[in-house]
Amino acid sequence: MAGYTPGEQPREDGFIKLNTNENPYPPTPRVLSAIEEAMAGDRLRKYPDPLGTVFRQTVGRVLDVDPDGILVGNGSDDILTILTRAFVPEGGLMVSPTPSYLLYKTLADLQGASFRAIPYTAAWGLPHPWPAPDAHLTLLANPNSPTGTMVPLVELERLAGELRGPLIVDEAYADFADANALELVRRHANVIVTRTLSKAYSLAGLRLGFALGDPALMRELIKVKDSYNCDALSMAGGAAALEDQEHFRAARTKIVATRSRLGKALGALGLDVLPSQANFVWCRSLSRPLRPIFEELKRRKILVRYMVYEGHGDGLRITVGTDAEIDRLLEEMQRLLPAGKEV
Amino acid sequence: MAGYTPGEQPREDGFIKLNTNENPYPPTPRVLSAIEEAMAGDRLRKYPDPLGTVFRQTVGRVLDVDPDGILVGNGSDDILTILTRAFVPEGGLMVSPTPSYLLYKTLADLQGASFRAIPYTAAWGLPHPWPAPDAHLTLLANPNSPTGTMVPLVELERLAGELRGPLIVDEAYADFADANALELVRRHANVIVTRTLSKAYSLAGLRLGFALGDPALMRELIKVKDSYNCDALSMAGGAAALEDQEHFRAARTKIVATRSRLGKALGALGLDVLPSQANFVWCRSLSRPLRPIFEELKRRKILVRYMVYEGHGDGLRITVGTDAEIDRLLEEMQRLLPAGKEV
Repeated sequence: MAGYTPGEQPREDGFIKLNTNENPYPPTPRVLSAIEEAMAGDRLRKYPDPLGTVFRQTVGRVLDVDPDGILVGNGSDDILTILTRAFVPEGGLMVSPTPSYLLYKTLADLQGASFRAIPYTAAWGLPHPWPAPDAHLTLLANPNSPTGTMVPLVELERLAGELRGPLIVDEAYADFADANALELVRRHANVIVTRTLSKAYSLAGLRLGFALGDPALMRELIKVKDSYNCDALSMAGGAAALEDQEHFRAARTKIVATRSRLGKALGALGLDVLPSQANFVWCRSLSRPLRPIFEELKRRKILVRYMVYEGHGDGLRITVGTDAEIDRLLEEMQRLLPAGKEV
Repeated sequence: MAGYTPGEQPREDGFIKLNTNENPYPPTPRVLSAIEEAMAGDRLRKYPDPLGTVFRQTVGRVLDVDPDGILVGNGSDDILTILTRAFVPEGGLMVSPTPSYLLYKTLADLQGASFRAIPYTAAWGLPHPWPAPDAHLTLLANPNSPTGTMVPLVELERLAGELRGPLIVDEAYADFADANALELVRRHANVIVTRTLSKAYSLAGLRLGFALGDPALMRELIKVKDSYNCDALSMAGGAAALEDQEHFRAARTKIVATRSRLGKALGALGLDVLPSQANFVWCRSLSRPLRPIFEELKRRKILVRYMVYEGHGDGLRITVGTDAEIDRLLEEMQRLLPAGKEV
């Protein structure tokens, strides 16, 4: 088994990191104050609240959802692992559209389950009728990675109705999108939405995510998670980040504007760029391999993610950084892909 | 399925908490400085090092072990989950002596495996020959909870030789004991030791543990863990705690002295007390149920852990607190169990 390989975290300084979809802007300073308070004196010597009650209440208030319908996780990867273990027997079936987050197949491998990848339609929608209604778990990243595209709610809702098992809508990037599936959670007991604080709230270093679903189901899932899966500092910091919606919106607005500029500039270089609803842009070339571009950028200390998906050739997934970082990237790419030259 | 129920974490202040084996003394102040540094400015926006390289190097230096033989975990519960998923197929067999840590059976249930509990001998040693040499995973807490007793290394080594699968020596409490199994890891490729920073290093709030084992095996286990299972702050804080061995030893010395005093005083109250090598003491009564004592202590805002094990009647597992906390506990217990009166 190969295991999932996350994007590179260079040990050396000086890289422009556009490879793991981190937020280029710092978290709200309230996070640091909340963490300082949570660790003051001898507080760290005690176990955290295993249910994350205060954090869940904050999520409930900010997102207008029932706190009892929230499950806390050590990053949304932990949540995805909990869901896999809860719903998928050894030899079971996990299904996801493709191309998508490669971790889904790794989770199936670890669980001893089969994995079936169902191609998106040419317009990045879902095939109808859905060909695998009997999966033990169906995972759909929305917005999707690496494409950045989004399946409309109406298609999601149709899928939820067709499936006999749970539909996990992985909304790691939904904070950057124009829509999300929270209302589907209210309407369909088999829909579970997962979220993370890593991206839009600039807290990748803390490891904190959560799932939103039917309260009765969440009570059962709590039995599957490690008792103390979330630490005291990440829950304190995460709650402070969620409370500061003004800070969140300011960073989001900048990222959405830079994303639009980046997409247009990459298109002008002759690359095939999909419209993105996430904090990254995926680009491909119809006529040349992109690996040399990836390697040359790395040599110039700019990291992007090089990805190859069957049927889609290769491509670069580029995180939306600060304007200055994206200017530097575009400058190098303009040198590597002179304008007008067919790529 | 019932799930594992951790000890109560009261939301209300004012309790003397002797129920979850937390360290009564604060962590070294160096932990707080290290965490402040690790979160300064915009550092939290980036993912942590998935391999925990710096933390592993620190563990390697402090414990004199090969950093490549270390696996980092989000508490030792995460490590135990990783080991279960790596070694135990659905329908497999997990084995542990009994009475012991109740989580082991929960892990088997979650994995869809059978669990077999093998009674300790009357002298709290291991039966020989070992009756389940074919288990997919054998777990042994040493020192054990709730007993506080310890199986000598020579018995552990004999067991490692008899088993056809891995032997996990759960050393959550070994920092309070006179011996540990690190040398067995060097001699037996099937021995894996797990450790935590929650107890002896006063960092239960952070969630950080690790496993020590054969480097080739650890490289495979890394594929099973979530990529980013440990956050940046806990690894920074954990490394700082390990570096301050003087602070660790000072707290350990106090706890060991208080443990001895607590054991003697409980014995003088007529309770059956085992000699403990951990940071708690387990006591039973030959003649009366202890639940009323537990409940009365709780009413007086002293929490201890009430535990019932088949064949052992009920008992109280009492964490070694500060001297002042233990004085308060003993004062109440003397009222509830007048000296000389048979219990």
